[in-house]
Amino acid sequence: MSTSFADAATLTHEQLEEGTAFAPRFDAHGLITAVAQDQGGRVLMVAHMNAEALRLTIETGEVHYYSRSRKALWKKGETSGEVQKLIGLSVDCDQDTLLLTVEQTGRGAACHTGRKSCFYRVLKDGKLVDTGEPRLFDPKEVYGY
Amino acid sequence: MSTSFADAATLTHEQLEEGTAFAPRFDAHGLITAVAQDQGGRVLMVAHMNAEALRLTIETGEVHYYSRSRKALWKKGETSGEVQKLIGLSVDCDQDTLLLTVEQTGRGAACHTGRKSCFYRVLKDGKLVDTGEPRLFDPKEVYGY
Repeated sequence: MSTSFADAATLTHEQLEEGTAFAPRFDAHGLITAVAQDQGGRVLMVAHMNAEALRLTIETGEVHYYSRSRKALWKKGETSGEVQKLIGLSVDCDQDTLLLTVEQTGRGAACHTGRKSCFYRVLKDGKLVDTGEPRLFDPKEVYGY
Repeated sequence: MSTSFADAATLTHEQLEEGTAFAPRFDAHGLITAVAQDQGGRVLMVAHMNAEALRLTIETGEVHYYSRSRKALWKKGETSGEVQKLIGLSVDCDQDTLLLTVEQTGRGAACHTGRKSCFYRVLKDGKLVDTGEPRLFDPKEVYGY
């Protein structure tokens, strides 16, 4: 199976927003924002994909991102074992954001800090308060730092 | 109340990821990605905030974004009446993404197409399939186009 995407520039506004053509609008850096949510509605993480990461995600059913800090394709879980299985993929109205529904395998930690979700702090009176999310792995053991 | 943010550049990696200082990392354009989710876990929309939009959101309890297409501060619902009330605000591990829990007031439509969520299409066999999300308002009536 070879995945190709439509070119958003060839679509009308109506086609982009209401049509069936999948035309992900990668930005000037070739990236698109991807929000990963579990089946219970918990937002686990927000990252970016380039076209290759998106193709590999669709073709393998395992989520791939593009790491902006490492400037490299990044299969989620390649180091940690915390692979994300793709359950569903949605796109927003203007096709510049993806919403992934995933099953977080491994120990269930999407975050590199070892927590289930990257969103483990809430703002209260101007300060961040840790919600007490447990660490499901020790990042020092997994990443060696 | 005057809201100020910490400068992420003055924080250690540990302080940024585990500390109590709220240091939203605006990008080179002065923007940060914000995901808005309702209390049931439905992701409604993904947009951007500049520092002013974030301050106003926190100070007024009504969600403000920055419109990249209009290059202007944008109070959600200012035209449509679909104001978002802020219930909670989380930040991710490296503080470059915000997760807002909101109550979507008005007719309950976060999307400018009149639907509850901007994510009303799923990818299936390479094509987008409309999930049948009803329109809660007629965008032609609301926006005049």
